[in-house]
Amino acid sequence: MGGYENGDSPAAAAWEGGVILGVDGGTTSTVCVCLPAAMPPPEAPGSVAVLSRAIAGCSNRNSVGENAALETLEQVMMQALTMANTDRSAVVAVCLSVSGVNHPSDQQRMLDWICNLFPRNAKFYVENDAVAALASGTMGKLHGCVLIAGTGSIAYGVTEDGKVARAAGAGPVLGDWGSGYGIAAQALTAVIKSHDGRGPQTNLTRDIIRKLEISSPDELIGVWHRWAYADPSWARIAALVPVVVSAAEDGDKVANTILHDAVQELAESVVAVVRRLTLCGEDGKDQFPLVLVGGVLEGNKKWDISGEVIKCISKVFPGVCPIRPEVEPAIGAALLASSHLRKESKLQNGS
Amino acid sequence: MGGYENGDSPAAAAWEGGVILGVDGGTTSTVCVCLPAAMPPPEAPGSVAVLSRAIAGCSNRNSVGENAALETLEQVMMQALTMANTDRSAVVAVCLSVSGVNHPSDQQRMLDWICNLFPRNAKFYVENDAVAALASGTMGKLHGCVLIAGTGSIAYGVTEDGKVARAAGAGPVLGDWGSGYGIAAQALTAVIKSHDGRGPQTNLTRDIIRKLEISSPDELIGVWHRWAYADPSWARIAALVPVVVSAAEDGDKVANTILHDAVQELAESVVAVVRRLTLCGEDGKDQFPLVLVGGVLEGNKKWDISGEVIKCISKVFPGVCPIRPEVEPAIGAALLASSHLRKESKLQNGS
Repeated sequence: MGGYENGDSPAAAAWEGGVILGVDGGTTSTVCVCLPAAMPPPEAPGSVAVLSRAIAGCSNRNSVGENAALETLEQVMMQALTMANTDRSAVVAVCLSVSGVNHPSDQQRMLDWICNLFPRNAKFYVENDAVAALASGTMGKLHGCVLIAGTGSIAYGVTEDGKVARAAGAGPVLGDWGSGYGIAAQALTAVIKSHDGRGPQTNLTRDIIRKLEISSPDELIGVWHRWAYADPSWARIAALVPVVVSAAEDGDKVANTILHDAVQELAESVVAVVRRLTLCGEDGKDQFPLVLVGGVLEGNKKWDISGEVIKCISKVFPGVCPIRPEVEPAIGAALLASSHLRKESKLQNGS
Repeated sequence: MGGYENGDSPAAAAWEGGVILGVDGGTTSTVCVCLPAAMPPPEAPGSVAVLSRAIAGCSNRNSVGENAALETLEQVMMQALTMANTDRSAVVAVCLSVSGVNHPSDQQRMLDWICNLFPRNAKFYVENDAVAALASGTMGKLHGCVLIAGTGSIAYGVTEDGKVARAAGAGPVLGDWGSGYGIAAQALTAVIKSHDGRGPQTNLTRDIIRKLEISSPDELIGVWHRWAYADPSWARIAALVPVVVSAAEDGDKVANTILHDAVQELAESVVAVVRRLTLCGEDGKDQFPLVLVGGVLEGNKKWDISGEVIKCISKVFPGVCPIRPEVEPAIGAALLASSHLRKESKLQNGS
């Protein structure tokens, strides 16, 4: 990167209208992309011009504390600007989509902080990570519902006039059984129940024991407690999902029931959001985008979880239009900033 | 306590045949009772002669570390002996029933440690806490099943020839939905689902918000996470059970479903243990004791959880004989030591 001469480089061209930063801040990593502000609304994912992309570590304030999180965010944004051969004075808008920022007061503190880093007339947007995921599927348009099912799960919807609603996302134990964590917990429960005589036999016992490299279901509880308490790693728990999917594909009844229940939970969370926001129109038949994100919804398996979820939803709302994002959430965040910016300038121009 | 003169005091009388210690070691407190060894098998709870009772803090090695746990155990035993006006040389048997001692290697380390504290010919027994709870209901006889449903839940059974089986007890998330923790988690899930549109309306929303002194279900997730991760207090979570019971008694459908599901889970865990151990005899109709322990099973409510559990079990095994212990687990542990001792001396005498 870098090395462009002023005047004829893409970065310098972008500089003319300024640049936009989109940040996707997560617990494992933080990604910042830099886009030219002077671009038409992208028609297709391939048409997004990305000037630079920088990566840093964790920026979840709940994990590393507020100061370290803000430091990481500043650093990754400055790095992206340098890589795009420009600097903070060129920034016209930033969208921060950071996990762990849930409360309006968190959001306000973030806005107060970021406005001191960039020119006075720049625009700033702080959104939760579900909004950037939605925008990554709708290319910046804020309308529709996103279903995220990775380690955790959440359904989040937005209407064109700015109403929002969410369902699920309460984390392990409180009903997120469609998440990777939930599916894995159900599978381990099935193994324990089979072992102690409460449940039917299942191949999950053999498969999970092999995967975890333990010798008996008796050891399962210890492994689980180590994961869940001593060294919380939800991601490692959720990594059992492929074992459940394989067992279900091979015809195991218990595994099939677990996946069907997960499908039901995920579909119900979307239906609840769509209904509350009337995303489907008054007659329930309008089209609306449903963006599908996260490891549980990756559709390259014979047992197609996302396909089944869509089937369930379309029985209630036939207008559901499933979208799998082709760009990453950081670009979603940048497109969101860009679309906010266009809307605001239209309002100013009275058009 | 104390102040007895040697020769004519109960303690001195007990001294003649030696004393037995029963210890119930838990996460919140540790209780040690001292009983005379020379006593007939007790016929009724009232007939147990307790020489002394001492209390100390936590002796769960997983909470305070092994050294602190052992120190607490030694201290509480010595205190009980002093209170009974005797000393360690009088001890003929000790039964330690300590939570957190699950693995045979933990048990062996405990035995290696305790045999250095007391006379060489004394007998030592290390059991898990479920065994002492069973013995507290059967007055020391090791036969039958115990169902514990407090914060956690477990069913544990023993046959007269020493076979054991357990079901449930895997802790939160892994299927212990009949525990106090499980019932509370289901109630919070119902409130969240009702709030985000996935579930029916329920009075639990009003009741739980009032109990937790929060203003909206949106705050629930934060409260839960604080409880479950930042400051794990399963007991505080389980304290929501009375709220669920009241709502169910007032006719709330959701609360009733949660309690019926919990009853089902608890009954299934007992049925699994009884079946594996054939406690009900070959024809399934033999009588067997079922000891019921823990806050969830306290039977003074209109909505009688333990009554419903017994009803469920007796449909499968009509010979179930429910017992509510009238003595505490520490006495159960002491009675257990006493009954082991009688068995061993019978074997030695060839009778």
